[in-house]
Amino acid sequence: MSLPAEFSLIARHFAPLAAAAGLGLTDDAAVFAPPPGRELVVTADAMVGGVHFLPDDPAGDIARKLLRVNLSDIAAMGAVPLGYLLTLSAPSGTPEAWFATFAAGLAQDQAEFGVHLFGGDTTSTPGPLSLSVTMFGHVAPGTAWRRGGARAGDDLWVTGTIGDGVLGLWALQGKRPDPDGSLAAQYRLPRPRLGLALHGIVSAAMDISDGLLQDAGHMARASGVAMQIELARVPLSPAGYAAGPDFVSSGIAGGDDYELLLAAPAARAPQLRAAADNVGVTVTKIGRCLGGEPGVICIDGDGNALPAGGGGWSHF
Amino acid sequence: MSLPAEFSLIARHFAPLAAAAGLGLTDDAAVFAPPPGRELVVTADAMVGGVHFLPDDPAGDIARKLLRVNLSDIAAMGAVPLGYLLTLSAPSGTPEAWFATFAAGLAQDQAEFGVHLFGGDTTSTPGPLSLSVTMFGHVAPGTAWRRGGARAGDDLWVTGTIGDGVLGLWALQGKRPDPDGSLAAQYRLPRPRLGLALHGIVSAAMDISDGLLQDAGHMARASGVAMQIELARVPLSPAGYAAGPDFVSSGIAGGDDYELLLAAPAARAPQLRAAADNVGVTVTKIGRCLGGEPGVICIDGDGNALPAGGGGWSHF
Repeated sequence: MSLPAEFSLIARHFAPLAAAAGLGLTDDAAVFAPPPGRELVVTADAMVGGVHFLPDDPAGDIARKLLRVNLSDIAAMGAVPLGYLLTLSAPSGTPEAWFATFAAGLAQDQAEFGVHLFGGDTTSTPGPLSLSVTMFGHVAPGTAWRRGGARAGDDLWVTGTIGDGVLGLWALQGKRPDPDGSLAAQYRLPRPRLGLALHGIVSAAMDISDGLLQDAGHMARASGVAMQIELARVPLSPAGYAAGPDFVSSGIAGGDDYELLLAAPAARAPQLRAAADNVGVTVTKIGRCLGGEPGVICIDGDGNALPAGGGGWSHF
Repeated sequence: MSLPAEFSLIARHFAPLAAAAGLGLTDDAAVFAPPPGRELVVTADAMVGGVHFLPDDPAGDIARKLLRVNLSDIAAMGAVPLGYLLTLSAPSGTPEAWFATFAAGLAQDQAEFGVHLFGGDTTSTPGPLSLSVTMFGHVAPGTAWRRGGARAGDDLWVTGTIGDGVLGLWALQGKRPDPDGSLAAQYRLPRPRLGLALHGIVSAAMDISDGLLQDAGHMARASGVAMQIELARVPLSPAGYAAGPDFVSSGIAGGDDYELLLAAPAARAPQLRAAADNVGVTVTKIGRCLGGEPGVICIDGDGNALPAGGGGWSHF
């Protein structure tokens, strides 16, 4: 007895990725509960061909980035990842091999990050490949990190380096040389900053997906604080420094970094550094929170505030 | 201070729909737990313009159908709906009024079905409108209905009437007269069969989204039973009967009915009917489960099996 194409596709490529909660992907829904005594953290991000990835990106990398951008939101709440649902709308005629490579990418990052597939949906589309993941994590009740907790006097920190997402995009667009492909790899495979034991240390957290400047604005408004970012302190990768003295303004405006922006009382700095060291993540203090009108002010190397509303700063 | 367009769109149209768990849609993720002592049931369905709805369908009806097809999966597991995440990829230039009407449709069905928005993502797309919902429900542990529980000797039942989805599609395509718009309304606004108290009564359940015949095949394979459907017993609406004596074969092959297919031991029939009566839902016995090769056999009015593999039966 033959099966309709959609169902045999699911059976061949996606059923092997399923958790027990996914019921073999043959029922109408998945059934699960958070671990005893834990709350669920749940986020959904969509990715569309030509918008969030390039049409000729490898299918396995598209799958892995899709999981990673969602895992970054789980990391930003201080949660432990658990599993996900996937909806996939693919152009008719997408070859079987594409699905096999896509599923292999999912399998690779499921193993790396300890998550499983709970369920989802596959459909056709007359448009570009369109993907959506809903990712679950869990936290102790009441301990999820929020954006709105930053207070005047807190220091501002970032993990890793800023601007590698935009450098990677430029490399893939042919605007930068990338002889060893490392810039493109940063764009295609961001690294979610999971595992930082910062409960009781940070007062606010979020991931940097829309650019440091824009995302700091979100945190500033949610927290009701003014934020001062010292551009000279913003950590760049070697490629970022090599991109010239003006690169930092592109780096803080560009998206796809998937580092964490953290606010923490100054007295917590040693604990913050120790927790980051424990998982091999660098953290850098880039500024502070002040009273006053919520928003973000950037300070240049001479301590002068850069004018708001000019150049790349139009949203702030 | 102005906000980027995406965020002001969310604040204006979607934040008013959010549950407390959604944290005002300003954080990276939602935080929630199932009600005490309950398991979560979770499902995701995508809908794409030109595939799952017609490009000129009213935005409010698209929103409501999106919730309803997902709520139908929650109903099919015997669960109580709780809330959902939404990802929406819209063509650039989609007018503000479209989003307002779409959100009003969500609000209307949120009130009707008792669910709230937990979070999600909005993006642009170079293709057609592309939507995905992840819907949560809850059940007492271990009581979710499954597809694989049907046993030889069980009766097969359906709720409501079969074939109204395909009649509605034909009406919208101009293939059928639809003077009062009632056929189109059935296609645009299916009714999820929530609230049936059938725990301990049904041995298997699923919703009919891909057509009764195909979905019965899924249940038959999952349960390891042969199913016999008597075509003369398949309940049609007045419009279905008016469509002529051959309509039933289109009705059982067409999709978008969103009724429930149920298997139950013959001794449970009175309880099944009583539970359906309690919520004003009709149920009709359409056949039975037998031993033998898993699959579906249709019996005509004279008791003769229709040949498999011919006409619209190719998948079976």
